[in-house]
Amino acid sequence: MTSLGEEARADTARLEAFSDGVFAIAITLLVLELRVPDVERGRLWHGLVDEWPQFAAYLSSFFVIGIMWVNHHSMFKQIRRSDRSLLFLNLLLLLWTALLPFPTGLIARNLGEGGIDAKVAEAVYGANLTLAAIAFSLIWAYAVRGRRLIDHDMTPEQERASIARFSIGTFVYAATIGIAFISPELALAMQFLLALYYLFEQLRA
Amino acid sequence: MTSLGEEARADTARLEAFSDGVFAIAITLLVLELRVPDVERGRLWHGLVDEWPQFAAYLSSFFVIGIMWVNHHSMFKQIRRSDRSLLFLNLLLLLWTALLPFPTGLIARNLGEGGIDAKVAEAVYGANLTLAAIAFSLIWAYAVRGRRLIDHDMTPEQERASIARFSIGTFVYAATIGIAFISPELALAMQFLLALYYLFEQLRA
Amino acid sequence: MTSLGEEARADTARLEAFSDGVFAIAITLLVLELRVPDVERGRLWHGLVDEWPQFAAYLSSFFVIGIMWVNHHSMFKQIRRSDRSLLFLNLLLLLWTALLPFPTGLIARNLGEGGIDAKVAEAVYGANLTLAAIAFSLIWAYAVRGRRLIDHDMTPEQERASIARFSIGTFVYAATIGIAFISPELALAMQFLLALYYLFEQLRA
Amino acid sequence: MTSLGEEARADTARLEAFSDGVFAIAITLLVLELRVPDVERGRLWHGLVDEWPQFAAYLSSFFVIGIMWVNHHSMFKQIRRSDRSLLFLNLLLLLWTALLPFPTGLIARNLGEGGIDAKVAEAVYGANLTLAAIAFSLIWAYAVRGRRLIDHDMTPEQERASIARFSIGTFVYAATIGIAFISPELALAMQFLLALYYLFEQLRA
Repeated sequence: MTSLGEEARADTARLEAFSDGVFAIAITLLVLELRVPDVERGRLWHGLVDEWPQFAAYLSSFFVIGIMWVNHHSMFKQIRRSDRSLLFLNLLLLLWTALLPFPTGLIARNLGEGGIDAKVAEAVYGANLTLAAIAFSLIWAYAVRGRRLIDHDMTPEQERASIARFSIGTFVYAATIGIAFISPELALAMQFLLALYYLFEQLRA
Repeated sequence: MTSLGEEARADTARLEAFSDGVFAIAITLLVLELRVPDVERGRLWHGLVDEWPQFAAYLSSFFVIGIMWVNHHSMFKQIRRSDRSLLFLNLLLLLWTALLPFPTGLIARNLGEGGIDAKVAEAVYGANLTLAAIAFSLIWAYAVRGRRLIDHDMTPEQERASIARFSIGTFVYAATIGIAFISPELALAMQFLLALYYLFEQLRA
Repeated sequence: MTSLGEEARADTARLEAFSDGVFAIAITLLVLELRVPDVERGRLWHGLVDEWPQFAAYLSSFFVIGIMWVNHHSMFKQIRRSDRSLLFLNLLLLLWTALLPFPTGLIARNLGEGGIDAKVAEAVYGANLTLAAIAFSLIWAYAVRGRRLIDHDMTPEQERASIARFSIGTFVYAATIGIAFISPELALAMQFLLALYYLFEQLRA
Repeated sequence: MTSLGEEARADTARLEAFSDGVFAIAITLLVLELRVPDVERGRLWHGLVDEWPQFAAYLSSFFVIGIMWVNHHSMFKQIRRSDRSLLFLNLLLLLWTALLPFPTGLIARNLGEGGIDAKVAEAVYGANLTLAAIAFSLIWAYAVRGRRLIDHDMTPEQERASIARFSIGTFVYAATIGIAFISPELALAMQFLLALYYLFEQLRA
């Protein structure tokens, strides 16, 4: 049928197209969580100001998904081959990406209220981010180990260092689940700083 | 205009791009069925736990659509030519794929209730999956018979075996429609196991 | 920068990708118009049966958008060049395509009621289809006249015949706007038959 | 791995695919802001006529996003290289594009009411457009200065002229924020005229 090289190229191309679709839709669906304020006449501005938690949640999730896309992009620029396992690991990543608008909605409607509900909402958001980070690490580890899907020039030590460096954020994300119960605002700030960390290329040691 | 080879390549490329779009949107729209719990203050966690059927329905439909995409991907990696009939058979498949969020919503809101409504919701879900499986089999049979759209090296017997093997699941999906009226939970479990069956490549004998 | 040939190819490629996106999203968003029946316990099946107009509207609009995509696909397989006017004519077509879920919702909720509202809903639906058909004809006429964007071998008479043949449906769609006020069911049936007409290639004389 | 040339091409390709997705979804989601009128029987037509502000907002935002896509398309046809900064500037542009359905909803529900709420809604809409225009100018300035991402033949003076010409609209958009408080209708009309300005290619001096 096709040469191996051609098949591999087509494989990654369609995986990337499908992933681009899910990332693009998830990031754009976030806007549906923004409600037009339901206030009495002449109070629209106050209504908008009172809705600050939903705008904070929108901005945070937009950059989280955006930075995830940038990293997905960097990762698959290096991945040269594809197999059925990669398709399913990628599907796992897309599962947690596509789910993100839900905990974003939880935060939007509960962070301003304070109390236990704000903590639960933040912890669920942190859990979602942690699961996405685990899926990312699994893809990278699967692809990089023994040059399975990447033609790299790293030694086994450098492979491990690259995986470790990329996975460090996973533990910080996991920590924010607990921190949410002490201070949901601190947990949110840490998640934002972590997104900034991944803003810079962390794939190569 | 273009050589036949170029046209054929462009044909499948745009059909795949359009299908990727529909799969990606259907899989991402599922999140809109997840409702932020409408509970009194301090009860968010209990509200989330009580919503387990909607999370089960989300996960199940996410993997069903995801595995359908993986199989669509495998199938069209082999399909080398395209014609107007293929476009419409593919449109039929997309119809049942794009519809899936609706019975997913039926299950999400009725499975926890039990009674006849849970059975009806499960049966409608099973019917949707059956129709999608039929459309998949039609595409494969149309493409593979007499090397119409695929340059394969199978004998007519192997062609038939490949079609039969791929179509087996259709009958099991159809059976779950009836089983839903005995036990909706059993029907759901069978549909999940069937998804696992299609997780492995079933196109070649 | 790039050779003229390359630019032209890239032009149509991105126009097609953007259009595929809008078609795919519009066709998949239709499912959001399907409401889970809000009925008392044990009446789910009756609730679903009573919702037949929304399923009829869903099926009809799914095939209308699907067939539009197939024709867009056929048309742009022949269009070899792109210019700013084509981008805007295409944007006009996408406007009416993306709008279609709205009159679909009008029909879904008013056709079963009968009376003047069913007629108005059907007429608005017919107007939307007419406007989409006009945009389609404008694109084809713009591209085909004097080989502006297509390297065809038609005589000026054949050009005119091709445009006329493709545009015939526009007048039938326009007629259904009036017919909706006599019988909304007849108008809907005519629109369905017209979709079947466009199911077959009508671009070449 | 890949030659520099190949990487650059792939970079822009996926950036464009992701952007096409976001533009296509944002433009198609606008239809969800259109509500089926909730009127008593036989009053559907009057209900539709009373909803004119939502149709005006739909049309306006459809053309704004559509023209933004056309300009994005023209811009990236010239941009030959990609780097991480470009990815993030583009993400900033997509943020304001994906947000646009929200202020569109604000206008749809408040412009007909008049008073301070109509002014606030128009000003928020103008602010969103201004932020999108700033992001557009940043991308163009970043790409064009010193031939960073574009192989152009402009002198430094022509570079500056091109950036200035493209950025002029930003100041007009910013002005409409203030004008909204004098006359929201005038502000809306100016935004529409500005969209017409960008309908014509403004990238080259």
